[in-house]
Amino acid sequence: MHGTLLFWCPDRPGIVSAVSGHLFENGCTILHADQYSDPETGLFYQRISFDSGEGADRDGLAEGFSNLASEQELEWRLSWDDQPKRVALLVSRQDHCLWDLLLRHRWNELSCSIGCIISNHEEGRKAAEAFDVPFHLLPVSNENRSEQEAQIRNLLVEQRIELGVLARYMQVLTPEFIEHAPCPLINIHHSFLPAFSGARPYHQARKRGVKFVGATAHYVTSELDAGPIIAQDVISCSHLDSVEDLTCKGRDVERLVLARAVRWHLEDRILPGPGRVVVFE
Amino acid sequence: MHGTLLFWCPDRPGIVSAVSGHLFENGCTILHADQYSDPETGLFYQRISFDSGEGADRDGLAEGFSNLASEQELEWRLSWDDQPKRVALLVSRQDHCLWDLLLRHRWNELSCSIGCIISNHEEGRKAAEAFDVPFHLLPVSNENRSEQEAQIRNLLVEQRIELGVLARYMQVLTPEFIEHAPCPLINIHHSFLPAFSGARPYHQARKRGVKFVGATAHYVTSELDAGPIIAQDVISCSHLDSVEDLTCKGRDVERLVLARAVRWHLEDRILPGPGRVVVFE
Amino acid sequence: MHGTLLFWCPDRPGIVSAVSGHLFENGCTILHADQYSDPETGLFYQRISFDSGEGADRDGLAEGFSNLASEQELEWRLSWDDQPKRVALLVSRQDHCLWDLLLRHRWNELSCSIGCIISNHEEGRKAAEAFDVPFHLLPVSNENRSEQEAQIRNLLVEQRIELGVLARYMQVLTPEFIEHAPCPLINIHHSFLPAFSGARPYHQARKRGVKFVGATAHYVTSELDAGPIIAQDVISCSHLDSVEDLTCKGRDVERLVLARAVRWHLEDRILPGPGRVVVFE
Amino acid sequence: MHGTLLFWCPDRPGIVSAVSGHLFENGCTILHADQYSDPETGLFYQRISFDSGEGADRDGLAEGFSNLASEQELEWRLSWDDQPKRVALLVSRQDHCLWDLLLRHRWNELSCSIGCIISNHEEGRKAAEAFDVPFHLLPVSNENRSEQEAQIRNLLVEQRIELGVLARYMQVLTPEFIEHAPCPLINIHHSFLPAFSGARPYHQARKRGVKFVGATAHYVTSELDAGPIIAQDVISCSHLDSVEDLTCKGRDVERLVLARAVRWHLEDRILPGPGRVVVFE
Repeated sequence: MHGTLLFWCPDRPGIVSAVSGHLFENGCTILHADQYSDPETGLFYQRISFDSGEGADRDGLAEGFSNLASEQELEWRLSWDDQPKRVALLVSRQDHCLWDLLLRHRWNELSCSIGCIISNHEEGRKAAEAFDVPFHLLPVSNENRSEQEAQIRNLLVEQRIELGVLARYMQVLTPEFIEHAPCPLINIHHSFLPAFSGARPYHQARKRGVKFVGATAHYVTSELDAGPIIAQDVISCSHLDSVEDLTCKGRDVERLVLARAVRWHLEDRILPGPGRVVVFE
Repeated sequence: MHGTLLFWCPDRPGIVSAVSGHLFENGCTILHADQYSDPETGLFYQRISFDSGEGADRDGLAEGFSNLASEQELEWRLSWDDQPKRVALLVSRQDHCLWDLLLRHRWNELSCSIGCIISNHEEGRKAAEAFDVPFHLLPVSNENRSEQEAQIRNLLVEQRIELGVLARYMQVLTPEFIEHAPCPLINIHHSFLPAFSGARPYHQARKRGVKFVGATAHYVTSELDAGPIIAQDVISCSHLDSVEDLTCKGRDVERLVLARAVRWHLEDRILPGPGRVVVFE
Repeated sequence: MHGTLLFWCPDRPGIVSAVSGHLFENGCTILHADQYSDPETGLFYQRISFDSGEGADRDGLAEGFSNLASEQELEWRLSWDDQPKRVALLVSRQDHCLWDLLLRHRWNELSCSIGCIISNHEEGRKAAEAFDVPFHLLPVSNENRSEQEAQIRNLLVEQRIELGVLARYMQVLTPEFIEHAPCPLINIHHSFLPAFSGARPYHQARKRGVKFVGATAHYVTSELDAGPIIAQDVISCSHLDSVEDLTCKGRDVERLVLARAVRWHLEDRILPGPGRVVVFE
Repeated sequence: MHGTLLFWCPDRPGIVSAVSGHLFENGCTILHADQYSDPETGLFYQRISFDSGEGADRDGLAEGFSNLASEQELEWRLSWDDQPKRVALLVSRQDHCLWDLLLRHRWNELSCSIGCIISNHEEGRKAAEAFDVPFHLLPVSNENRSEQEAQIRNLLVEQRIELGVLARYMQVLTPEFIEHAPCPLINIHHSFLPAFSGARPYHQARKRGVKFVGATAHYVTSELDAGPIIAQDVISCSHLDSVEDLTCKGRDVERLVLARAVRWHLEDRILPGPGRVVVFE
């Protein structure tokens, strides 16, 4: 069975040797390993994908890591390919990222199960029905915001969701919701952050006369559009592009960037750093 | 002889027909034409490159345009390929853009004559000597800033410079200098503006964890890094890239972007719009 | 009403003036114009999009062009935005381009009506049903090839299809079919042509160790993968990418490239040149 | 002192553990490690950069690897940062790659010493003089080809050159020369191979109407343009680009691609695979 081990800790000699030794002793074959030592923070990051062989003792392996982690002061996460994460998709009116994620799931690009789609508008229902995913309509206004967020939270908890994807969900979630969310949240913002954060980035881009528009997928934190960046990409534009043209071009970039970020998260390729993340592509 | 006509005016029916008719009547063949009508401002822009034939009456042609311009309320510029613009290059310690522009001139990519190189440091002298361009060392400090800027201004005027290129000239020019400069100035900023304006953009980029770094060439206005953008490009990066790595990657992008902007200016491909420019590539 | 005029002819002075004059005299306002003079063939190409105003005399305008075309020896095509082209989509097992075109149509990126989907396999039916487009299953083998192609031809004729899109239709159409097809055909080939024409291009790419894989949309001619190229794009890869990884990456490029080519055709941006085409983006 | 270890061998469990253990026991700290297991060939590749500390016993470390290599049947290479490779640059008339490599060396992007420049034309002398590198003019014709190649060979041997870079050296080297060359050779070909191998690739590209032109850096083998690809890149183009325009655009791509390949070779990032190479960027 294929597994993935992530760990990070203050860098010191012998860590790689200790961890790879532990895997070897437990009958695991390393399939791929990536590592990074951050010269500024002194932190060491590693991702190891391995084959544990048939009938491996998963609990024993995890316990061994737990002991090793205490000894070496490392933080770690262990996941198995036969336990794909459960995902919820949140969307508003524009459904291009929603369709894209559902289609990639169909094409086996995303190793996850899609538990539900949550929206404050009706537009996403067509995609939900085409792929037989439960659709929850939760309209929101300034009056019912806290109740609506409580409903979202309940859905995430009930469905045991492990990742929430804001696939052009155009409501600003409250800091209260974000801080107590039962799972990490990935958002797609339709600009090359930190340029053009906030509202109407394509209008801002058109006005400033930039030569590229972009998209940024990031983890959601309580500060708007300021969470750690996971993936970004850009597409060239010119004075010829109206806001509608930029919106159209942007759909292509937004889809690519959000899908990339979600896949990296699902494949446990992202490790938390201070203020930014380490991504082993 | 090849000429280039730029004009812009409030859009109305018949402009294209009137101008192309005038060229045709004066024995000119249109080689290439680009046009753009800005739906927001209602302004119309056109660039026409044409062949006037041998022994054309340039003054007569210009006078005809002048009359047409009055009739049609259009602003215009006319230039001829046998009158390449005179350029001055300004540089500080980092010489990569300087070498690049001199080499492109050697390879006939830039249709101009390079009148002089001006620097507040010695590093650029080697490139100046390799290509036999006069090098003027004008050190600057907070004490002598206004005198030094006056010296730069004098050089630009004496040399009849028509374009000043800030090829990594790392001093912030005063609004007084900029407003009274005898020629337009193009600057290269080592970020994808409006992200990371101001000092040390690669440090800012590293800290924010962006996935691309970029460069922006823009006309200099009295507001720092806020002038109309001419050209931009980006290069991908990751957590692996230190500030030194970003600086190294950035050299490639800065060179490409600045050269592109300078070439477009020299070939009269840039028309002024409100807050941004129209570039006919 | 918005119209688009394409024309091409041996270059000579006065063409632009004559055509723009004719439009002006007929009360049309030029919205955008692109032109190209090919120095090798001496041919001149122009695309003009214009606004004819309310209640324009379309027949009169066309008749005027017809006269002008005779005088000036130009070939031309005139189309109107309120007469979108009728399109058929052909697909085999892999449905990513099919979904993509249907979704872009939903998002108003493609100005056309989609008359039918034709496939030699069942996989495309799901997409057809999601968007209520008639689905025609026409299995094919070496035994029934000519009958199957006759059925395709009949469908195209009956449905008055003006463009056939081979959206990963994996059968090589016979020269007989292609030469007598009632409409132009656009194909997507999953390599950066002329590299890796023919079968299994991702296998070929993996074996050669290239650093990018690409996709090419081209008009279909009787010579396999040799028709005029309309659009291409590439995505970086490395030794890490298995054939499956390349196939996955390729899906993104194929979708973008085919959609771009189809849109350009639908918007009358493509003019025929000798061996290659002129595209006014 | 920083060192780099490359090794490759048939994959089997325990290799990573054995090698990292050996480094740890010899007081080395792993700075970065990359690995790849090729599923098709069953070969395992690893690159480890490490810090051996002050006053390390280099001979002892190498002897240990030698023993480990025998045990584990691995092939290996060990290099040290304080022993930069000696490089020769070969060039013909077009000097853009030559200048570029010399400038990157000036900016400390290339860790090597440049022993000499060899050319069959005079054009490169200017760059050689600007950077004080010995310039050897060795004109070549069909009559003196074998003598000229013998002179090149002698220079490479005498100067103890460890890498020869064909920086737009436009002569086809004979298989005899290539097979007996005293060092590896990297060539830049001005197309996206395998498209447009052989002569005049920009003419071929223009004729075929491709939408990108590219450049390919590869190790030289006796089969023309068929050696293992190290680096590639592309730049977009259109019908507007004449052969001269493509040549101009190509200069930018050729420079970037050749410099990338040379840097990867100098930093020991390239491992030999069957028919293609593994590059740890």
